[in-house]
Amino acid sequence: MTDCVFCRIVRGQLPAEKIFENDRILAVLDINPLALGHVLVLPKEHFETVGDLPDELFAEWSRRLRDVARAVVSAANAEGYNLLSNNRKCSGQAIPHAHGHVVPRRTGDGIKFSWATAKYREGESAAWGERLRKAFPR
Amino acid sequence: MTDCVFCRIVRGQLPAEKIFENDRILAVLDINPLALGHVLVLPKEHFETVGDLPDELFAEWSRRLRDVARAVVSAANAEGYNLLSNNRKCSGQAIPHAHGHVVPRRTGDGIKFSWATAKYREGESAAWGERLRKAFPR
Repeated sequence: MTDCVFCRIVRGQLPAEKIFENDRILAVLDINPLALGHVLVLPKEHFETVGDLPDELFAEWSRRLRDVARAVVSAANAEGYNLLSNNRKCSGQAIPHAHGHVVPRRTGDGIKFSWATAKYREGESAAWGERLRKAFPR
Repeated sequence: MTDCVFCRIVRGQLPAEKIFENDRILAVLDINPLALGHVLVLPKEHFETVGDLPDELFAEWSRRLRDVARAVVSAANAEGYNLLSNNRKCSGQAIPHAHGHVVPRRTGDGIKFSWATAKYREGESAAWGERLRKAFPR
């Protein structure tokens, strides 16, 4: 993907503060961090969403996301962290190249994920359960 | 963990709408969903955070999180999805038993993750980069 910002970072055509790199995965500082030390973890190969990654690459990406979480907790002396992956524009995905966020957290840091909840009507959760079980990959 | 809500669900002592279950992982509908079809994926064994899971269990959890994402997209006819794992209370983790959220998303659904960003001062991102690279698990 010629114009993809993350592909350009992977190719060295845009600068980034690299945290980890191997042949398949790159982790860089997010330049619009929710908190200092916020890291992005991405496959070098271009896929739009993490759901699109081949199984083995997804496994490697997950593993490195957790390695980064451990590094972030240690380096930021964080109390906790969020792992977040937005997939497709409607979800808040800003760059259409699959990635995960590791955000270091601390009590009272002011970061809020709004959690306005929906409600199941009577019987509706059983119907959703059935629909989801049927859709589960086999 | 006798009193843990998720452990009680795993043991069948609390009801839940189960989406997927094997010997190590359970996926259930979130009873306070961000959107209908919002699913939680958890290891049956009690660990506080996903960072605490043994490697193989973490890999299985990640894999099932993605299976659930695929089921959610199909069953909810979603345009996209968020994968989110909050780790420790400061991060928004409500139940201290490791879990991940799969949230089906649609354009204009009104769900917002506030994204108030911090800023690196001159030279600060390089210092963070160095600290994180040093802290990366070997």
